[in-house]
Amino acid sequence: MSFASIDTFESALASLTRPDGAAIAAAQARQAQLTKPAGSLARLEEIAIFFAGWQGRERPRIDRGRVAVFAGNHGITVHGVSAFPADVTVQMVANFRAGGAAINALAKAADLELIIVPIDLDTPTADFTVAPAMSEAECLAALSAGAEAVEPGLDLIVVGEMGIGNSTAAAALATRSFGGAVADWTGPGTGLDGAGIARKIDVIERALQHHGSAPMTPFETLRRVGGREIGAIAGAILRARQLGIPVVLDGFITTSAIAPLAVANPDITAHCIAGHCSAEPGHQKLLDQLGLAPLLRLDMRLGEASGGAVAVNIIRSALAAHAQMATFAEAAVSGRE
Amino acid sequence: MSFASIDTFESALASLTRPDGAAIAAAQARQAQLTKPAGSLARLEEIAIFFAGWQGRERPRIDRGRVAVFAGNHGITVHGVSAFPADVTVQMVANFRAGGAAINALAKAADLELIIVPIDLDTPTADFTVAPAMSEAECLAALSAGAEAVEPGLDLIVVGEMGIGNSTAAAALATRSFGGAVADWTGPGTGLDGAGIARKIDVIERALQHHGSAPMTPFETLRRVGGREIGAIAGAILRARQLGIPVVLDGFITTSAIAPLAVANPDITAHCIAGHCSAEPGHQKLLDQLGLAPLLRLDMRLGEASGGAVAVNIIRSALAAHAQMATFAEAAVSGRE
Repeated sequence: MSFASIDTFESALASLTRPDGAAIAAAQARQAQLTKPAGSLARLEEIAIFFAGWQGRERPRIDRGRVAVFAGNHGITVHGVSAFPADVTVQMVANFRAGGAAINALAKAADLELIIVPIDLDTPTADFTVAPAMSEAECLAALSAGAEAVEPGLDLIVVGEMGIGNSTAAAALATRSFGGAVADWTGPGTGLDGAGIARKIDVIERALQHHGSAPMTPFETLRRVGGREIGAIAGAILRARQLGIPVVLDGFITTSAIAPLAVANPDITAHCIAGHCSAEPGHQKLLDQLGLAPLLRLDMRLGEASGGAVAVNIIRSALAAHAQMATFAEAAVSGRE
Repeated sequence: MSFASIDTFESALASLTRPDGAAIAAAQARQAQLTKPAGSLARLEEIAIFFAGWQGRERPRIDRGRVAVFAGNHGITVHGVSAFPADVTVQMVANFRAGGAAINALAKAADLELIIVPIDLDTPTADFTVAPAMSEAECLAALSAGAEAVEPGLDLIVVGEMGIGNSTAAAALATRSFGGAVADWTGPGTGLDGAGIARKIDVIERALQHHGSAPMTPFETLRRVGGREIGAIAGAILRARQLGIPVVLDGFITTSAIAPLAVANPDITAHCIAGHCSAEPGHQKLLDQLGLAPLLRLDMRLGEASGGAVAVNIIRSALAAHAQMATFAEAAVSGRE
């Protein structure tokens, strides 16, 4: 599946599938009978019911879960918006492939397969203070790269990213999507100091001014101030929805990919779980805008799907309790007085 | 190992072991070299270093982790302080043994062995509004039952409880230990309504008044307003400290077991991780008093070690990243500019 045209993308976003209501009802009925005070597993119960709906079965499971890490390079790095050199993107892709990065260990610990999708790392996006980051064709290619990373048969997909400079793109996407001051969406990323953050804010303000008269459509926002890996995440989220596959979001940058889509159709978040709220200050604000409550808050700020992968362990626990617990009748346990 | 006398217990609490400083330093040095921005795994890094200290090795691991669920019955239930009948304690112990409870599924999902330790369920503690919940001998037996559940060779132990009525004992322990209004420590437990909570507060106030002139020692507080399973948790925590085994705490009741100990020696929490902050309102307050930050907040309120067992998944992820990641030098990744 690919997004061959802007129309393909916009049609997909306009016609979102819904979860299976019968499976949700069956899962809710099961939860009410399990040997625990009603509601006492709280978020774990919600997760089980959510997965029941998207997987269309009373007892959902994760036989095959995937982490997809998308990587892209950013022309905006010429302005010194990152604490690390742009070379690190390609070096980290090599590290992912060699198995040495955090996500390798964290995906393995959560029993998830891992795919790495670098997108044209030799061709950074344009400096978006003076031009759109991507041409229309480049943005469609990025969306399609994301869609191709999702395949039927997956029970869950965790999306993540690597791209030096991409927290600048994420803050620009969030501001263009939801408004407010650039400073409220902008943070240290991998470790900028105060002067670096001020520089980053200035770059984003200039970019938003430059693109101010362009249409406020999801596609134009993504291609003008996004990045290839961010476009790919948007494509993956949309493709997963078509296939009814639940998505676990990672940090601020991953979440920013959904922002322009949610402005056009807020229901795009319905198959998504926020895995982790990161230490990047704009992330909580973005989750609030999207109506998503994160499973974890561990102050992580790494990206590369790390927070999402850790969150899958919570999901596995939720589905295990839902599937394996005895009912009050089976266990001969008394109910409330 | 058993707590044969009050003196044995008090001596153990007065002479707590410390973690291995060299292992901590080695783990910190390793973290600084791993391929990620310094500090970007945040809580996961802290966990790895904490386990390095207590396990005495640069790369800690959990080959053998145990969940111990202690169960006791409470005379205080005659006052209608629980939404469930007291029979449920013994019924749930049978459910644990048959494999049908939440903790069975959650322990399995976290690859933990599970032991169930019911303590004299046929003999509820005394109604502590009019007498000490336990005699000295009964309290020592409870502490010893906890200690016996911990054995050398464990890499981690999760402590949890089952006991209809025990959130009343927990609130009494917290109030007697840390002061403040009973109402601030008292919540719905398994599901009391407002009138039930008011009744529970009244019961606790009467109990604290009855025992007001008794010595404010950890032992007297535990035996007067605690319970057998709570005493066992205190004993298990103390024994784990002697053996250098990290402890993962579960919810409000489990955490209340450490409260009287912490008043006498605040360092008792140093080998403990708060797995989960529960929906029971007093739990956050108790964690604040103890200086513990929970790994998870999933609104769970079940007890039976459920929150602690789920948290072990986060610990496994933390240790996996720490042990398996490549260093900047190994992966030829550039550092900060």
